[in-house]
Formats: sequence, structure tokens, C-alpha cells
Amino acid sequence: MKNTVDHIRLSADGKKLIILDQRRLPLHREYLVLSTAESMYDAIKTLAVRGAPAIGIFAGFAMYVLSQQMSRVRGEFDAQFARTAAYLNGSRPTAVNLSWALGRMERVVKDNAALRVEELIPLLAAQAQAILDEDIAMCRAISEYGLSLLKEGDAVLTHCNAGPIATSRYGTAIGPLILGAEQGRKMKAFADETRPLLQGARLTSWELHNAGVDVTLICDNMASIVMKQGWVQYCFVGCDRVAANGDTANKIGTSGVAVLAKHYGVPFYVLGPTSTIDLGCATGDDIRIELRDSDEIREKWYSEAMAPEGVKCYNPAFDVTDHDLIAGIITEKGICRPPYTESLKKLFE
Amino acid sequence: MKNTVDHIRLSADGKKLIILDQRRLPLHREYLVLSTAESMYDAIKTLAVRGAPAIGIFAGFAMYVLSQQMSRVRGEFDAQFARTAAYLNGSRPTAVNLSWALGRMERVVKDNAALRVEELIPLLAAQAQAILDEDIAMCRAISEYGLSLLKEGDAVLTHCNAGPIATSRYGTAIGPLILGAEQGRKMKAFADETRPLLQGARLTSWELHNAGVDVTLICDNMASIVMKQGWVQYCFVGCDRVAANGDTANKIGTSGVAVLAKHYGVPFYVLGPTSTIDLGCATGDDIRIELRDSDEIREKWYSEAMAPEGVKCYNPAFDVTDHDLIAGIITEKGICRPPYTESLKKLFE
Repeated sequence: MKNTVDHIRLSADGKKLIILDQRRLPLHREYLVLSTAESMYDAIKTLAVRGAPAIGIFAGFAMYVLSQQMSRVRGEFDAQFARTAAYLNGSRPTAVNLSWALGRMERVVKDNAALRVEELIPLLAAQAQAILDEDIAMCRAISEYGLSLLKEGDAVLTHCNAGPIATSRYGTAIGPLILGAEQGRKMKAFADETRPLLQGARLTSWELHNAGVDVTLICDNMASIVMKQGWVQYCFVGCDRVAANGDTANKIGTSGVAVLAKHYGVPFYVLGPTSTIDLGCATGDDIRIELRDSDEIREKWYSEAMAPEGVKCYNPAFDVTDHDLIAGIITEKGICRPPYTESLKKLFE
Repeated sequence: MKNTVDHIRLSADGKKLIILDQRRLPLHREYLVLSTAESMYDAIKTLAVRGAPAIGIFAGFAMYVLSQQMSRVRGEFDAQFARTAAYLNGSRPTAVNLSWALGRMERVVKDNAALRVEELIPLLAAQAQAILDEDIAMCRAISEYGLSLLKEGDAVLTHCNAGPIATSRYGTAIGPLILGAEQGRKMKAFADETRPLLQGARLTSWELHNAGVDVTLICDNMASIVMKQGWVQYCFVGCDRVAANGDTANKIGTSGVAVLAKHYGVPFYVLGPTSTIDLGCATGDDIRIELRDSDEIREKWYSEAMAPEGVKCYNPAFDVTDHDLIAGIITEKGICRPPYTESLKKLFE
């Protein structure tokens, strides 16, 4: 099997899915070997694999691995396949890429109703590989479009993690910085640590540092003073679902960064593949926001709880950034500008 | 000795200063017994005592305790007293209350040049007590003015901690909520956890919960989604130094909350005693911002580091909120409105 990324790959016999456990970074580089639907569901749910495009890639290979364990009777296979896809789709509700990738795998099953299971399985492998290959190409194109905006010495503020391990290679939001570093260009980055799961501290600062980008880690609440001092020229963020009007769901806190950027006159860009655009979703109001456990705020990572028992927490995993705060949406097909109802629609024509 | 608060008090013989160690809250209620200038400097520096008014109260009693150890020769006493005050004043640069309280203690020394040291020391004790008594009265008055704005069911978002242990009693920013709860009024609070030192999680949510206020703890980056949903009617924050034009230094992240509040149409109020207003400071540009250690972001509280070694961090302890983002400044003398250059000046006439 081809594949070509380290953090989501198949075992040599193609019967297991091996992923970098993102929960253990940056101090521990550990891999999980997955072969059951339950362990794959948990890997998404508990964020061992995370990042909207990476979840899509993972889902493709996961369905291929699981398909090999299903009935060889075609009718039974189809029912098992549909049930398993629906099960994995329930692991996280906000990112569109999960259902998009599962939908692509299911279409292979439906479009090849006449084939025997043995003939179908290689097509599923090819489709999973195609999702990955396309993501690699998309990230590269997005990175090039993003990089075209940047001048030598510019600094970009980013929130959460939309780098290589959240996608395939380069990433989306920080792809331009990593590509720029490869080309010897000198850009700077500010990484919001991104509470409560600290993807910015654990993943983004690690990826940018490894790529040789001059990165400064800040707490989320420091973005204001950094922008006020004129230290950043752009904000680049990823996305989990973009509605038809340009409203964008991304990691909790993104909308706050966008409001600050508008106040301080810093152009705010969303970077993501067209697979993240959901024209079936008219506005951000139609995007379901995942609520996560209070303990992520109260005690996760800490040596002891940081808030007293009995105190309520509100822990939404995402928020929606209004389209009128977004200067542009950078996709693999180019940079969309407002009004997004028109520019996003054109991408699919 | 009178005193009447638990978290900053004298030992029975008046020779030691006993303080609640705020670094250990909320799980551990531990006290420090301090009798040397070095231990008092460290208590401020390492945030065992924190909150601008509390630091002022602490400084008054600290100088009284230390004065008892000084020379009984008046000339030597005066020199030692001045040197010790200057030393303590260097522990934290941003809050004005520290130098303000030390200045009050020094004035007692200067205004009573004819007295013997034995006669002077009781006056220092009385001045320290006066700083505390005045703070109690100020917090009560501020809380009443703040509460006068609130209707039944209103929710207030606050950042960092300006509650009882940051002051004397009631507090400033959350004083209205605590006073309201005492009076059986039903108000709600959202507490930003306030990275990196988590004063909101560890102290504010604990104080509000103990006072019976319906409090919800959020990460700093969730203030945007909370305001967007219309869940808060006011933002109330404390202050470490207010410039003559109303620009306000407060805990890092406060300026971001103010920008969000403006965007979402939520009135943003600063609450603090007039001792926090520094007319000698024309604008926020004149306020020195304390930079703290990177490790507070990278590894403090955690069971292991959350960012790789070698990644730079930027860790300012405060930021300045522009006066034009502030709907009002609530002091013990009433609510100041823009233009602050006029309304703040009037407070001192």
C-alpha cells in the first residue's frame, strides 16, 4: 500500500491502522495500532487523531481496515458497512470532513453494487488512498496561496492546530509558514496555546519549531496585547465546517481572535480544503457545536484540580466566526473573497 | 490589634504577618507566617498574596511588622524604613497600590519626625489598620454602586480575580455579586479561568461558589461564544492602575474581553478604589507592564511540560484596556463616565 504520511498509516499487511497518538505530544512520540471500530471511534472521540482533514483521512483508512473483517456475503457486507460508517460518524459532530470521507467510502460501495466483496475491498483501499493523496495536494496548494500573501518578516498569529498532523502534510493554517521556511523565507508565528486541550502549545508550537519557524507561544488571552503592539500582520486559522455564507466553525476561541483582528485591523483568513465547505449548511446557526466534559477545564493535564468540585463549567469545543469578520477563505482552488455566498458557490461549479 | 480579615492579619503579638497562601487554593487552605522583608518580598513576587488592593493592605502591615525590628535610633530607623519600603516596592511594578500604601506608611514616618521610634511604631500600626479599614469601606461602597446597575437574573462576566482575597472584603469586580447574593438577589457569573496563573478558576470560581453565586467557569477563549449567545449583560473587571485618561492596566487578557464586549454590545466596567487611579500617569502608555517567566505558560501546574523545550513564550502579566472601551469606572465615590480625563480628576477635588 502506498500511503506516505507517518501519522496515519496502514500496517504492512493492511489489516491495522497505525496512528500517532496526538494526546501524548510533544514529549512522547507514541503510536496506536487500531483494528476495531470501537478503538477507532475512541481515537476520534478522545482526540488521539484530531484536525478536520486528518479525521477524514483516518476515516477512509479505518473503513478499509474494517471492511476486511466484514461478511463476504455482499448484502450482509453492505449492511455492516453502512452501520459501521454511521457509528464512526457519531464520534464527533462538528467537523464536516468525517461525514464527507465516510460518504466517499460509502459511495464506492453503492456505485459498485455488482462487484463481489473481494473485488470491492481493493477499491475501498484506493479510495482511502485518494482521500489522502488529494489532501496532500490540497494542503500544498493552500499553503502556496497563503504564502503568496506574506512578505519577508511578516508574523502570523494562529489558533489551535491546523498543521501537518491535523491534515496530511504542510497543514492548512500553518502550511504557508512551513512551506515558507522550506524555501528559506523568514516569517514569524505566534501560537495561541488554545485551552483547554492545548493544541497550540503541544502541537502547533512543536510543529513550527521543528520546521524552523520563529514561533512564540502565548496564552489565548495574550492575542489582544500582541495585536495591539502591531506584532502580527495576519491571522491564519483552520476550519471544521464552513457554511454557504462563509460563517466558519473552528476551534473554540477562533471567533474571539477574529473579533480582535477586526478591532486591531489585522486581516483574518480561514484556510481549509473545499471538502470543509458545506453548502448544505446555510449559515453558522445550522452548525452543531460539540460540548465536551467539564473536567477538561477543571483538571485535565494538571497535577491536581484547579477549580473546586461543584463549580459548573461550560466547555464548547468550537465556535462560529461570522463571515463578516473574515477577510478571505483560502482553499486549494484559490482565495475566496466576500460575498462568500457567491465566491464559495463558484468553487463547486 | 483590631484587623478583621482572615487572609492578611497579624499574629497575636503583632510581630508576624500571617497570610492565606493564594498559590495553594482552591484545594489547600494554608497560611504563611512572615517576619522578614525577604519573605514578604517573595510573597508578593510569587503571588502568595495578590490583587492590587490586597498587596496594598499587605504592604502596610508588612512595614509595621518590620518597623519593630529596626533601630531605636531615630535617624537609623528612618534610613532603614526608607530602604525597606523601596525594596518591597520592587517586588511588582504594575499595581499602583503597592507604592501607594508604602507611601502612606512613609508619610507617617516623615510627618512625625519629632517622635521617638517607640512612639512612632503605634502610629504605623494605626496607619496599616486604616489602610485595611478604608479598603473594607471602599469595597462595600464599590459593591453597592456596582449592584445598583444589576437587575434580577443578570449575568456578569469577570476576568482574573478581584474578590475578597484580592482586596479586604466583598472585593471590587465580584463585590456586587457577593453583596447581591447576601441580599438574596439572583445574579449569575461567568468566570474566565485566566491563564496562565488561573486566578479565575482557582480563586474567583471558588469565592463565588462559596458565596452562593451561580457561577460558570470558562476558558478565556470562550468569552466570545458566551457573549455572542447573549448570556452576559455586563463585564466587571478589577484594575491594577488607572491612568488619568481612563486607560486601565489589569490582568493580561482584560483588553481582549473589553474588545469582545464592545463588539457584542456588552457594557464593560472597571471596578476599583480611587487609590488605584494614578493621575501622575497620563495614559496607558506610561504604565510599565511586568513580564513573567516562560515556564508559567509552558509547565506551571502541569504534571509534565505542555510545550517543547526551546519554544519561546511571551508572558506579560497585564495589559492595558483603552479608555474608549470602558463604559464606566466604578469607585467608592461613585461611577465615573467618559470623558475620564474630567470625571477621574473630579474624584480628587
